[in-house]
This record gives sequence, C-alpha cells and structure tokens, in this order.
Amino acid sequence: MLNVGVDLGGTTIKAGVVNEQGQIIKQKAIPTGAERSCRAVVEDMADLVLEIVAEAGYSMDEVASVGIGSPGAIDPVNGLVVFAANFADFRNVPIVDIMKEKISVPVYLENDANVAALGESVYGAGNGCKNTVAITLGTGLGGGIIINGKIYSGGLIGGGEMGHQVIVADGIRCTCGRKGCWEVYSAATALVRMAKEEAEKDPASLMNRAHEGDISQLNGKDVFDAIAEGDAAAKAALQTYAHYLAIGLGNTINVFTPEYIIIGGGPSAQGSVLLDPVMECLGEEIFGGSLRTKVVTAKLGNNAGIVGASLLGTVQ
Amino acid sequence: MLNVGVDLGGTTIKAGVVNEQGQIIKQKAIPTGAERSCRAVVEDMADLVLEIVAEAGYSMDEVASVGIGSPGAIDPVNGLVVFAANFADFRNVPIVDIMKEKISVPVYLENDANVAALGESVYGAGNGCKNTVAITLGTGLGGGIIINGKIYSGGLIGGGEMGHQVIVADGIRCTCGRKGCWEVYSAATALVRMAKEEAEKDPASLMNRAHEGDISQLNGKDVFDAIAEGDAAAKAALQTYAHYLAIGLGNTINVFTPEYIIIGGGPSAQGSVLLDPVMECLGEEIFGGSLRTKVVTAKLGNNAGIVGASLLGTVQ
Repeated sequence: MLNVGVDLGGTTIKAGVVNEQGQIIKQKAIPTGAERSCRAVVEDMADLVLEIVAEAGYSMDEVASVGIGSPGAIDPVNGLVVFAANFADFRNVPIVDIMKEKISVPVYLENDANVAALGESVYGAGNGCKNTVAITLGTGLGGGIIINGKIYSGGLIGGGEMGHQVIVADGIRCTCGRKGCWEVYSAATALVRMAKEEAEKDPASLMNRAHEGDISQLNGKDVFDAIAEGDAAAKAALQTYAHYLAIGLGNTINVFTPEYIIIGGGPSAQGSVLLDPVMECLGEEIFGGSLRTKVVTAKLGNNAGIVGASLLGTVQ
Repeated sequence: MLNVGVDLGGTTIKAGVVNEQGQIIKQKAIPTGAERSCRAVVEDMADLVLEIVAEAGYSMDEVASVGIGSPGAIDPVNGLVVFAANFADFRNVPIVDIMKEKISVPVYLENDANVAALGESVYGAGNGCKNTVAITLGTGLGGGIIINGKIYSGGLIGGGEMGHQVIVADGIRCTCGRKGCWEVYSAATALVRMAKEEAEKDPASLMNRAHEGDISQLNGKDVFDAIAEGDAAAKAALQTYAHYLAIGLGNTINVFTPEYIIIGGGPSAQGSVLLDPVMECLGEEIFGGSLRTKVVTAKLGNNAGIVGASLLGTVQ
C-alpha cells in the first residue's frame, strides 16, 4: 500500500506519494496562501493529495493513509492545530475533519518537527532505530523525540520543546521569555552571532571581508567559508558554538539515551566540520563517561517532512 | 490478587505485601549486608518475600508478581543490575534469575528512583495520572519519568538521569564530571551549601548559632528552622535554591509536559515553604507562558519504593 505525506509550511504546501520503501514516487508543491481562511488552506491541501495520487497513476483505494506535518502546537488525538504562528486563521483548526470531507482514508496530524524526526528515524540517518532524537538547527532549535518507534510530544499538548531547556541559567533572553535556552546558544543563528563577536574582536578575520565589510550581513555560509580557509576567528566561534551544542546534546543523552541523535538544519550540511568539534566537547558531557548514542547528521534533507508525515498512519 | 514490592537499599532490604488498592498489608525489613556476595543478598531477598507472604497469612498462589527496586544502572528487560555503587559485588547481577530459583511467580526489576516515581504516580501525589515526573531532592537529585503509565528510562540502559542535565554551563563541577548539573544546584545538599554562603556573609544570621557556631555542621533542618524564624540570610538561600530548582522544573515541563511533577526528599516535607518560592520562579520558565503541569510534594514517603515495586508486574 501507499501512503501520502503532506508538509504544510507557512509559504508552501508540499505533498508526496510514498511507497512502502519510504521512497517518494510523486511529489508536488503549491503556495500555502497562509493569509487565507484555514478552510481554504486545508481544502487546497486535500485537493493536492487527490491530484498527486491520480497523477502518480493510482486510485485512493491504493492509499492506506494521509499524514500531515504542520507547524505550531498540535493536538494529534483530536486532529487539531491548536495554534500556528505565520498563519492568519490557525487557531483550533480541525484539520483532520476538514480533510476527511474530501479524503476517504484515515488522516493523521502531527507537529512538523516531530514528523521530520520520524522520517529521519525510520528512513534516514536513524537507520530504522526505535529510539532517536532529531534536532534541527535553524532560526530556532527544533526537536523531535521518537520513543519505541513513535513520536513523543509530551503528556500534555505542546511538549517536546527541547530547544527551550535552559542550559545557561540567567543567560541571554530567548524569544520564549526564558533566559539561557539551548536554542539561544545552538540555533544556526547563534553560530552567526558568535562569529560576529569574534570578527569584531579580530579585524584581520576573513569574515570582515564578506559583504563589503558589512558584518551585520554575515551568514552561516560566510562563517564556514572562513573556517575552510583556516580563519582563526571563525574557528573560535565554531568552538564556542560546539561547546554549547554539546551541552544540550549531553542533556538529551543523559535523559533519553537514544540510539541516535540526528542533527539537521543548515550547519549540519558541513558534516564533520561541525561534528568533529562537537564530538570532542561531548566526551565530557556523558553520565557514566561512555557515549553509546550515535551522533550523526540528517540524510533526508527537505524530504524528511513528506516521508515522516507519510509514516504517521503506520505508527499509531 | 496481591503483589509484593521489594525496596533494595545499600543498608536495608524492605519488602511489603501490597493489595489491589495499593495498601501495604504486611512489611518487614532486614539488613542488606551489602559487603557480601550478590547471591547471598539476593537469596535473603527471596526468603524475605516468602516470609512476609506467609506471615500475612497468604500462599504464593495468591501473589501475582514480585517487583524489585534497586539502586544503580538496571537492565529491566534482562533482569540485571548492571552496576550498583555501595554494593561489593553488584556487576551484571542476574537478580531476576536468582530470585526465580526460590520464587515461582513473575519477578520484575527496575531502578529504585523509577519505581518510587511509579508508586507516587499511581497511588501517591500523582493521583493516578499516566504522565508524571517525580524528582527526589537528597544528596543528589534523582528522577523517575512515567509516560503513558509506564516507567521510561531511556532508549539505552542508564537513561532518565534528569539530575545530570546542565542548567549552568561551565558551572560548579558535578560528581558525574559535568559542570553545572541541575543536581549541583537543586539537590538538598545544594540548599545547605547556599545557606552556608549566606550565613558567612551575614554574621547576624540565626544559622550561625546552630551547632555552637560550627557552620560546617549546618543541615537542611537548621536552614528551614531559621526561615521559620524569619532569618533573612536563610530566606535568601532558599530564594536562590528555588530559582535553580524552577529552572530544572521548567526544562522538565517544556520537554515532558507531565500532568504532575512530584517533588520528594527532605526539603519537600516543608510543603508550601518550599513550593511557594519555586512556583513564583516557575511562572517565568514555561514555554507558551501557561503552566498546566501541577507541581506537588510527594505523599508516600518511605513507602513509595515498596508500593512502586509492587506495581512493576501490573504495568508491563
């Protein structure tokens, strides 16, 4: 049987028909139009599902389930988006019920970070292991926790916020209101902040040459480009970043002891350039001293959302 | 049916016959003799179980299962104590297999902190809720995580070490080797350390009068006695302690969103004297700003181990 995965984003809705080997055999994307009513957005999503199944040459009878990954706080049991920022009208939206008006097979809903973690866990870097944690280093630090092969998102709605654990008491203020969250020190944006600080201290740093010397324009690629050229200031920034990233990873390992931690998002594309200093720091952070969790970078890239969503029906 | 719970400690083995309402209808304790071979300790444990069942007036046919809570790193699937400090000979001990030589009913093994959390969750302060976290403030900070009514102890052996999450990056060195663990700032011993620091800054503090002025002898009771008398230095210490305790609780809530967090151990006996300043700090630490988790003090006291262990057979 096939499953369909939908990756609902603030800008784009992507959907894919996924076979039993986790391969996307047909996918398509449409603009979200997040400024519209929730019903209009969800109806477009249902039409997109019907369309790609037909275009792939199948009927809905050959589809076992449809899964949706959505941003925001999700109530998977009742199929609701409780709240999603960046959408004009997403508050207690019964996405599953609206989908079911057009879709005859079971429909499941989960948070997008959780769904991507499930995809990476089953068909990506997690190698099919049942206990994994996936984090994404982006503007923020998102996380998804897989326990016994299923998404774990807390006892009450809105848990699993791994990025919002304080690792620096009384540290830098986070967007969430707390001070010193892991996100503030280990999101991709944190590396850029640390690099700017190092570049300002070291006028000779290559990072000061990017963007005609406008340091406010510095981005992650500039930092890793400078590291590739041996720039000391950029390397110092990465070292600081790796230190904090390892602290949060150490916390995650001591509590969850997952088989894999999968790191996704921009900096993860650097592979060992990122992982080597992180692993060096991580050695000091493990309870009992022996690191059994494998720390790896993500494999599925932008497809993790579709693949993970397509799996929701299979892990209930 | 009845269940038997065994609380294996470094000093004492306690066992109790527990009925279906979670009441201990017969209990007894013997010295552990932890300096002896593991076999001798485990055989005593088995004999104690047989003895209390008989003394309570029942036969083993009326016992559904025997559960054991043990300190150390546990492999519940294989019924092994992988390692336990304070025991001379506890390394990969097949406790369940040895017990079964004398005990004809199913035998289960788990870590003692996890077992106590299960007991509090089902029959204590957790009010029967399925998603709870229990922490114990003692020499260290132990924790037990209950997810969907079952003990969660990580994907690999030795997880659930909530006390060994760093909340103060580069902070005070922990016994585990990391710097700035929650345990270092929120174990009962941390309150005493903070109180000593405050007492040294304030010679007029009542805490300087205890133990004939020997501040090195200060203990938790002295601190709370001084607070009860309105001592400013002791109150300042509690405020600092509550700040860090709330940070770790906030981390726990943002990741696990449990229905209850149950606080046990010495300071928890103070009830609202401890909880009030903690709750005041906690308001700032919750993702989304709205605290739905109930934070309460433990109810079962020293019986949590026996009651929780007796439940192991019922939650497999």
